[in-house]
Amino acid sequence: MLPNLTPDVALAERLFDTLRERSFDGVGVTRDAYGPGERMAHALLRGEAAALGLETAADPAGNLLMVLPGADRAAKRVVLGSHLDSVAQGGNFDGAAGVLAGLAAVAGMRRAGFRPARDVVVLANRAEEAGAWFPTSLPGSRAALGRLPAEALEIARQDTGRSLAAHMTEEGFDPEAVRAGKCLLPPESIAAYLELHIEQGPVLEAEGIPLGVVTGLPGSLRLRDAAVFGEYNHSGATPRKYRADAAVALAELVYRLDEHWARLEARGQRLVCTFCTMGTTAEAGFTKVPGEARFQLDVRSTDAAALAAMEVELQRLVAEIGPRRWVRFELGRLQKIAPTPMDAEVQTGLARAAEALGIRHRVMPSGGGHDAASFAQAGVPAGMLFVRNQNGSHNPHEAMRMEDFAKGAAVVTRWAAAMAG
Amino acid sequence: MLPNLTPDVALAERLFDTLRERSFDGVGVTRDAYGPGERMAHALLRGEAAALGLETAADPAGNLLMVLPGADRAAKRVVLGSHLDSVAQGGNFDGAAGVLAGLAAVAGMRRAGFRPARDVVVLANRAEEAGAWFPTSLPGSRAALGRLPAEALEIARQDTGRSLAAHMTEEGFDPEAVRAGKCLLPPESIAAYLELHIEQGPVLEAEGIPLGVVTGLPGSLRLRDAAVFGEYNHSGATPRKYRADAAVALAELVYRLDEHWARLEARGQRLVCTFCTMGTTAEAGFTKVPGEARFQLDVRSTDAAALAAMEVELQRLVAEIGPRRWVRFELGRLQKIAPTPMDAEVQTGLARAAEALGIRHRVMPSGGGHDAASFAQAGVPAGMLFVRNQNGSHNPHEAMRMEDFAKGAAVVTRWAAAMAG
Repeated sequence: MLPNLTPDVALAERLFDTLRERSFDGVGVTRDAYGPGERMAHALLRGEAAALGLETAADPAGNLLMVLPGADRAAKRVVLGSHLDSVAQGGNFDGAAGVLAGLAAVAGMRRAGFRPARDVVVLANRAEEAGAWFPTSLPGSRAALGRLPAEALEIARQDTGRSLAAHMTEEGFDPEAVRAGKCLLPPESIAAYLELHIEQGPVLEAEGIPLGVVTGLPGSLRLRDAAVFGEYNHSGATPRKYRADAAVALAELVYRLDEHWARLEARGQRLVCTFCTMGTTAEAGFTKVPGEARFQLDVRSTDAAALAAMEVELQRLVAEIGPRRWVRFELGRLQKIAPTPMDAEVQTGLARAAEALGIRHRVMPSGGGHDAASFAQAGVPAGMLFVRNQNGSHNPHEAMRMEDFAKGAAVVTRWAAAMAG
Repeated sequence: MLPNLTPDVALAERLFDTLRERSFDGVGVTRDAYGPGERMAHALLRGEAAALGLETAADPAGNLLMVLPGADRAAKRVVLGSHLDSVAQGGNFDGAAGVLAGLAAVAGMRRAGFRPARDVVVLANRAEEAGAWFPTSLPGSRAALGRLPAEALEIARQDTGRSLAAHMTEEGFDPEAVRAGKCLLPPESIAAYLELHIEQGPVLEAEGIPLGVVTGLPGSLRLRDAAVFGEYNHSGATPRKYRADAAVALAELVYRLDEHWARLEARGQRLVCTFCTMGTTAEAGFTKVPGEARFQLDVRSTDAAALAAMEVELQRLVAEIGPRRWVRFELGRLQKIAPTPMDAEVQTGLARAAEALGIRHRVMPSGGGHDAASFAQAGVPAGMLFVRNQNGSHNPHEAMRMEDFAKGAAVVTRWAAAMAG
């Protein structure tokens, strides 16, 4: 029989407000990775955790551990984590919700006098918003596990131009120890990792369900710098058969790959396919046939077969459209990442906790990548819990109802107590 | 029996060289309309014409008339015209070839002691490159005929921001007289208008034929500022059914309208259809579903039925794709211009002249608009003769072989002598 634990949602709510206040940029919130924004958030959380009587420590990469000690300090630990950085002019909940749910859970345990059998670690990972700051995948959580490849330390922050290692040093951390694989959370020391996160998509809101138990994180197929080259010509004086129109060739690729997505989906395969940017370049203009077009492609799925099917179709279309339209596709680097399934037992445990609390949920894949991928890829049983949210994420209109957060935090608390109890 | 007249090609060649020298901008040639570039060209031609013993005059809009007087000064005149302005960093032949062919023709007549029955007027129209300078159609040649609407005088030059009227005044001309419809070439005073011009397209070069007798100038269907509005969303977290992807909606429109063009062409209809610019906007970025896309469309045909068929298909596709993809198309102003056929007798006369001289030619539609449209629309029998050229036009690589120009000038000379003889 589990003790009747409730998370300290009031604490989380207060900290959400303080975070927002201290990182408001006039439009949204900005908490830059390894910069003033993230530094502020880590300092705030560390102070609050200490005040709650938790042990606190920063690892060589600056990831923050806030530990509720268990009876057996040597036993494998339960980790409740997420990140505190945000994109520029982003929302307050993307990342912070997971860390504050963890803190609310252990604060609730402490308030109830609950002493777990094993350590419960609330983890604030660094630099999760890779697209916004350091263009590499999850450097903070990989370093937390001692698994960040040395070359990732040399990656420059997009705005400052200074390397990840330089930023770590500036923030008082130790990139040399990171390079040597030193860490506070070796994978074999972790019983399970759970990350609560806002959904970032419209599914839960549209279906009227507050929580989602995540089945897996997507793999991806990505083109970040692809181009089509044809020939600029006079739009009036160049008959169809003399054209090498880069724009119409790209339009055909976009339209037909989208059609292929629709066919795969009709067969029950789950994926998303987005031409995030696409179009003619500055050289194009009225009365010219476009001689060049550029595009970015982002295909994601938790199903490796769906990714493979899209890759085959992409290559087939490019090989077919290019010669027929007298254009040359240059796809650039095709970045492929395999999907990461979430641990089946963690999924079961989360569903059981939600059912015990009478909270509606559904199972669903994640659309985005998250720190949980680093843990799963390191062999740690990992899971994620999505909280219904509004207006997507990575924008100042991102929203979440506190009552939904409270439901998520309650499930996290119950699951963690069961795991660590 | 026509006299054996030959154009003074050496004169034209020398003037091409001087024009290029005096308007070279480091990349191509720039002869800005109602600015220093065009002013230089008009001054050069006026001086050369006077030296040849021609009468010269500028009309209230600054169009330059260089007249070989005929026996009957009151008889309807034969006009050989084109323009001397160019786009920025353009080629030397687009426009100038027609004026210099006319000058070479009358110089040849004068050299041979040929006195026409009626005046032969070489006409240098102002400001033909409307897209580059004054965004209105053919202001110079319409003013030459006394048919420029008053509101066109208020249009600002794209780079200077000053009105056409202001530029006319600065160059010493008389916009008030233009406004009042005063001119030197009222339509009823003209027997026929002929314009030699480089083809600007690849057809003659690809087919190995030096000259083209033009059947008509295209009408057009144009969108200069069209947009598609959807919704920005997270590219990973937004399933297909929740998307309003502006880019894929635009791609579908581009691809399917292009397919419709192919179908019309397979049925024998002649047209061109170009999405000159198209794509996502600066707000788009990796990991976002595009919420906005913009495009420009340029459809041209000498066949009014083909233009109508494309307009119907455009509207049908927009009405069908928009609601299905949850996006809103905003087409902006749909600019429609009717095709302008060239005079049948002028076409026959040109073909007969070419045949008499043993010069190969083909009949073909024009892809671009030209000053000849102003004359045809004013009821003047008008024709055009295309000269084979290389590398299109409106770019510094535009080229034309002088031997092809000589063939064109020979046909112009023979036709003009027959018309005026």
